[in-house]
Amino acid sequence: MTFHSMWAELRPIGRSSASGGYRRFAWTGADTDCRDWFRQQAESRGLTYELDRNGNQWAWLGDPAEGDAVVTGSHLDSVPDGGAFDGPLGVVSSFAALDELRARGVRFTKPLAIVNFGDEEGARFGLACVGSRLAAGQLTVEQAHRLTDADGITLPQAMERAGYDPAAIGPDPERLGRIGAFVELHVEQGRALDLSGDQVGIASAIWPHGRWRFDFRGEANHAGTTRLVDRHDPMLPYAETVLAARREARLAGAVATFGKIAVEPNGVNAIPSLVRGWLDSRAADQATLDTVVDGVERAAREYAEAQGVELDVVRESFTPVVEFEHALRDELARILGKDRDAALNVPVLGTGAGHDAGILSGTVPTAMLFVRNPTGVSHSPAEHATEDDCVAGVTALADVLEGLACR
Amino acid sequence: MTFHSMWAELRPIGRSSASGGYRRFAWTGADTDCRDWFRQQAESRGLTYELDRNGNQWAWLGDPAEGDAVVTGSHLDSVPDGGAFDGPLGVVSSFAALDELRARGVRFTKPLAIVNFGDEEGARFGLACVGSRLAAGQLTVEQAHRLTDADGITLPQAMERAGYDPAAIGPDPERLGRIGAFVELHVEQGRALDLSGDQVGIASAIWPHGRWRFDFRGEANHAGTTRLVDRHDPMLPYAETVLAARREARLAGAVATFGKIAVEPNGVNAIPSLVRGWLDSRAADQATLDTVVDGVERAAREYAEAQGVELDVVRESFTPVVEFEHALRDELARILGKDRDAALNVPVLGTGAGHDAGILSGTVPTAMLFVRNPTGVSHSPAEHATEDDCVAGVTALADVLEGLACR
Repeated sequence: MTFHSMWAELRPIGRSSASGGYRRFAWTGADTDCRDWFRQQAESRGLTYELDRNGNQWAWLGDPAEGDAVVTGSHLDSVPDGGAFDGPLGVVSSFAALDELRARGVRFTKPLAIVNFGDEEGARFGLACVGSRLAAGQLTVEQAHRLTDADGITLPQAMERAGYDPAAIGPDPERLGRIGAFVELHVEQGRALDLSGDQVGIASAIWPHGRWRFDFRGEANHAGTTRLVDRHDPMLPYAETVLAARREARLAGAVATFGKIAVEPNGVNAIPSLVRGWLDSRAADQATLDTVVDGVERAAREYAEAQGVELDVVRESFTPVVEFEHALRDELARILGKDRDAALNVPVLGTGAGHDAGILSGTVPTAMLFVRNPTGVSHSPAEHATEDDCVAGVTALADVLEGLACR
Repeated sequence: MTFHSMWAELRPIGRSSASGGYRRFAWTGADTDCRDWFRQQAESRGLTYELDRNGNQWAWLGDPAEGDAVVTGSHLDSVPDGGAFDGPLGVVSSFAALDELRARGVRFTKPLAIVNFGDEEGARFGLACVGSRLAAGQLTVEQAHRLTDADGITLPQAMERAGYDPAAIGPDPERLGRIGAFVELHVEQGRALDLSGDQVGIASAIWPHGRWRFDFRGEANHAGTTRLVDRHDPMLPYAETVLAARREARLAGAVATFGKIAVEPNGVNAIPSLVRGWLDSRAADQATLDTVVDGVERAAREYAEAQGVELDVVRESFTPVVEFEHALRDELARILGKDRDAALNVPVLGTGAGHDAGILSGTVPTAMLFVRNPTGVSHSPAEHATEDDCVAGVTALADVLEGLACR
């Protein structure tokens, strides 16, 4: 099974012919097809296939019970109309790197595993990294039971319908305790490598980030007959808050986005009673993020008051900064610097995106490799990585696994 | 059947216990219940019930074939979470005014009819006044066949499912040709009567108004990892355009509202690829309306270009100014001025709202009466009229019908 044929098999699964993007949501048919693919890849290579209690898939070379295992992998699910690389590049590259190491004839001194974490994107139930969070005890069983999709189907119901046993979900310290190092390869979701001219980079940290819901409550009224002075139109302070968020982020060197909105009653001839907007903001450090969000909220309150509109701000989720383990990060830099073209830089860079590696980093030594994304576009059908860069990623991952598992 | 008991029967139909507002959408169960109620009201008064080819309901006193009929009425459907009065006040007052005239013992010299026009609000299929437009030939059968609700159900399918024959729809000049005068009583949708201290007013004109769809197309991307300078976020020019619309309307003494929005992919962590906003704007005259809309569009183009976002502006609907017939309007003023308390003003006022009366005014002499709305709130569960003012409305309508149909 070559790198090319793995991609060819994955390509049609869950792809929308309308958008060209992927719709591989947790516990749907497309997700099941991806999981079947993973199992076939494991078995065709003679690896030991395991499904853990939280629906994460593992493919083992060697005996996991020996401990100090080297694990690599990523996820196969997608955001709505996501690209081909976010997630699958890490899983495909893991199998390809193992093939490469076998071709090199290396001797493994530690158990090695490839993993596919379930429901990383959170597209269906609204919470990212459900599989790794459950395993790491960062999501309780009670919280997981309350997760519900847009059709009112709960996570346990969805698992059951897909043929999995939801009764088993919960923390999995024994399984995570076997891992000596976890390395996740991922397509870069920005343009840092493109701007520096490098094919592959190493992650330093994941920025702290959170989601805040801004509920602007005004007064529904007729758009044709209500005098401007009699209006309490929540769309106006919402609009000013969108602009304030961009301004605050620019001043702080952070990012802030209003990408989701819900309006009631959402009629062309009705002044809204409610405009609900979600702010996503991330920054390199906590203090900067606080400055941005405080600034946006202060501006929103001022604008809302000026229009006689009520405002509630609710923090819906928050993830503090994740610093990847320095020793492992330095080890990767050493491996990728040695035995390679001296001209090849291996830059170390931060990222604003969350990953299963970020979740696991609290429990096991964890590192990430990024593969160049020439446009920086992510979470979109236009997401791209060149074949050359993907191959460089496989080589880098193989070098890292050899350095970690064959010493 | 008293005024009170008519309201008591209508009150529960299609009312949402969650919002307290009404959801009486064309050809749904709630609409059918309202139609059954209308038929019962007609038959209990010994009126001749007629369902016309476009689903409008008529209750006749006297022989329609005589011609020069006096017709009153309004509609029973609602906007999403609408109030109790918009529409039903006109229908209930029509039946109550007939009861009042019978109590007065007047002799009718012309046929009289009460009408319930179908689908006035356009809440389900997006086009207002479908019943009257079809009858007046302002909506072709082909256009009506293309109307589709949010679930993809077409207007003919919806009519058929509600037990009506969609094959019959089309212009109805013969039926409209029998009408000598149409008078629609409606709750005021602004505060002009409240500010002038009057219970009842007469309509002068319906402002020209239209709906424009603004499609801002940017580039979907990851909200956490895309640098601000690399973004083409359509939410930003949308927000600036919302503020520009308010500014332009204020400067021109007009109204402009963005009350409906659709965002793709509408994910918390995704920069949108598309933000679609609908502008509703109305003004006292055409030139003013043009100034407002041109100003909004110019600003939107400038903002979109600054963000590298594409913009399409589509005029989805437009209704020119409607001047109600001056002779009938003056006749109403004369009737309501005579035989009444001299202190009672009958102000003549314009309105920004569309009505079936506006549609019919191109075909038959048409007038409107407004009943005071103390808050001006409309298209909202908070819409209100006092009992005193509603009774004053019935008396005024009875006076007008007596003046027009008993001469």
